[in-house]
Amino acid sequence: MPTHAPTVADLNEKALLARIFPRLGAPKALLGPGDDAAIVAAPDGRTVISIDTLVQDADFRLSWPSGYRTSGFDVGWKCAAQNLSDINAMGAVATSLVVSLTLPGSTEVAWVEDLADGLAAAIHVLGASGCSVVGGDLGRGREVVVTAAVTGSLEGRAPVLRSGARPGDVVAVAGVLGRAAGGLAVLESSEDYASLHSDPSTENQVLLELAAAQCRPRPPLARGPEAAAAGATAMLDISDGLVRDAGRIAAASGVAVELDPAALARHAEPLQAAASRLGADALDWVLGGGEDHGLLAAFPAGTALPEGFERLGTVHDGAGVTVGGEAPRVAGWDHFAG
Amino acid sequence: MPTHAPTVADLNEKALLARIFPRLGAPKALLGPGDDAAIVAAPDGRTVISIDTLVQDADFRLSWPSGYRTSGFDVGWKCAAQNLSDINAMGAVATSLVVSLTLPGSTEVAWVEDLADGLAAAIHVLGASGCSVVGGDLGRGREVVVTAAVTGSLEGRAPVLRSGARPGDVVAVAGVLGRAAGGLAVLESSEDYASLHSDPSTENQVLLELAAAQCRPRPPLARGPEAAAAGATAMLDISDGLVRDAGRIAAASGVAVELDPAALARHAEPLQAAASRLGADALDWVLGGGEDHGLLAAFPAGTALPEGFERLGTVHDGAGVTVGGEAPRVAGWDHFAG
Repeated sequence: MPTHAPTVADLNEKALLARIFPRLGAPKALLGPGDDAAIVAAPDGRTVISIDTLVQDADFRLSWPSGYRTSGFDVGWKCAAQNLSDINAMGAVATSLVVSLTLPGSTEVAWVEDLADGLAAAIHVLGASGCSVVGGDLGRGREVVVTAAVTGSLEGRAPVLRSGARPGDVVAVAGVLGRAAGGLAVLESSEDYASLHSDPSTENQVLLELAAAQCRPRPPLARGPEAAAAGATAMLDISDGLVRDAGRIAAASGVAVELDPAALARHAEPLQAAASRLGADALDWVLGGGEDHGLLAAFPAGTALPEGFERLGTVHDGAGVTVGGEAPRVAGWDHFAG
Repeated sequence: MPTHAPTVADLNEKALLARIFPRLGAPKALLGPGDDAAIVAAPDGRTVISIDTLVQDADFRLSWPSGYRTSGFDVGWKCAAQNLSDINAMGAVATSLVVSLTLPGSTEVAWVEDLADGLAAAIHVLGASGCSVVGGDLGRGREVVVTAAVTGSLEGRAPVLRSGARPGDVVAVAGVLGRAAGGLAVLESSEDYASLHSDPSTENQVLLELAAAQCRPRPPLARGPEAAAAGATAMLDISDGLVRDAGRIAAASGVAVELDPAALARHAEPLQAAASRLGADALDWVLGGGEDHGLLAAFPAGTALPEGFERLGTVHDGAGVTVGGEAPRVAGWDHFAG
């Protein structure tokens, strides 16, 4: 018997899977885990599919400058959340996740169990009630890499693409802006996470909430299908920053997107005290921060915006993104930019 | 401009994607790459789905003791092949792949382009004519990790699970046994790959073919749906070794599998000279080697075996796997076994 906390190197693949699957709940599928593949219902004859990966030290740190240690729960939650969000952004509802874990042998089994709990919790809390983990893969590597592919059902609706925005449309957002970016700043700062946690002042609470937004984002999963039903002409989830992702709608649709400074200021205002304490600017977080996985959508002028959506700007002839008629001051995130 | 060969650190994500997608051919999907998710047809209202990962230094080495350097083409081919095989093993035909690449910044762009070519070539050469790469994800990491999720269509058939084998059934195999294991032995050996390549003796040719079987396996993709149509009661693809995978059918079906020594010897015989040269035993390769991704299936007694299947044994009351009535001498591969 090992004298240290058990690690994945202490278990064979079958034993490790036996620790994981009971935590994921009953699979909601025609065939769940255990065979060469799973089988998921596709009632309208179409399956929406996407894939997304989290890599240690690129997408998250196991240990942050603030002293915060990323839990397996955080990684499982974030993996599920960002994948479910891609289905939401098509106006679809998620039907399954398949998850591949690449883990160093030194990873504690408890951390992996926690990851499974985080996957299951995100699916439950975010309201993806028709979705479950139906399969996976386990392997060894030098760093933690977690990949999930997600399927979804359009339930007979047309998908909402990035390319359908038309001049005159209203641009609206559902979900939060800039909070995950603020959380990244907290985790990367010289603030001591343990001290924040032990002193429940209001200001500290805000910082802790921002950190939680980075580690366990809450994409507004019900809003995508509702936006589709309300006639959204274009939609995506904001994963790389508002300006960058608005630019994607503009480019795909062949239009210009103008964002309203007053609306942006309303999103930045509650973050300003925290940003000042960290030497940052809240508007930069709102314009450039990704990973909140809010929805950015365009609706025909005069549409009653569905619940949860807030007007953020307008679509015009032209190209690119402007804020109050000016070029925005921040770009977004690129995995490979220098 | 960089003075070295361009690496992924020299390109942003969009520019790297622009190098990859043209090599993958036109997507065969209702919606291909470029939006938050793709949309794949599921004509019979069901989608088969699986996920599988290749990790540098765990599933392949970039540089082997024999001097062979794994190409991007090899990795792309193997990624596609092993994923397509999981769909085949259900009796389904593949309909799409989504691929996530985690790459060190130092990876040459040409290597990534070669990986895209390998994905496309495997899909084409292995005959997955209804399948294409419909989406993906790119990110940075310390080592190469390639994950694909694959979808498939059962075309109205029932899936062939691992659990349906019944006493009296015939066990049969389609595809090759032991060749990828032999190839692993070649690559890991002190043979000099360049010398093998420059001396076209018959014996060297065999070693080169084994290495190719390891780097670019050829699962028999047409055979899965044919086996399903012929009434296969159980089926899986041999990815972790014949004995281990036969044991999975035995366990899932609650039966014993007896493998015929004479049939196994016929698979080992053509490999024996190569095995002897490398100080190995060909029967070990046949019994314990995975990664050829042949199909192991059970059929009711008296079934005319479909083309490409060869009788390998029988199903009995009991548990476990025997060879000529004895316990087999090798087990198979476990990613986490010590």
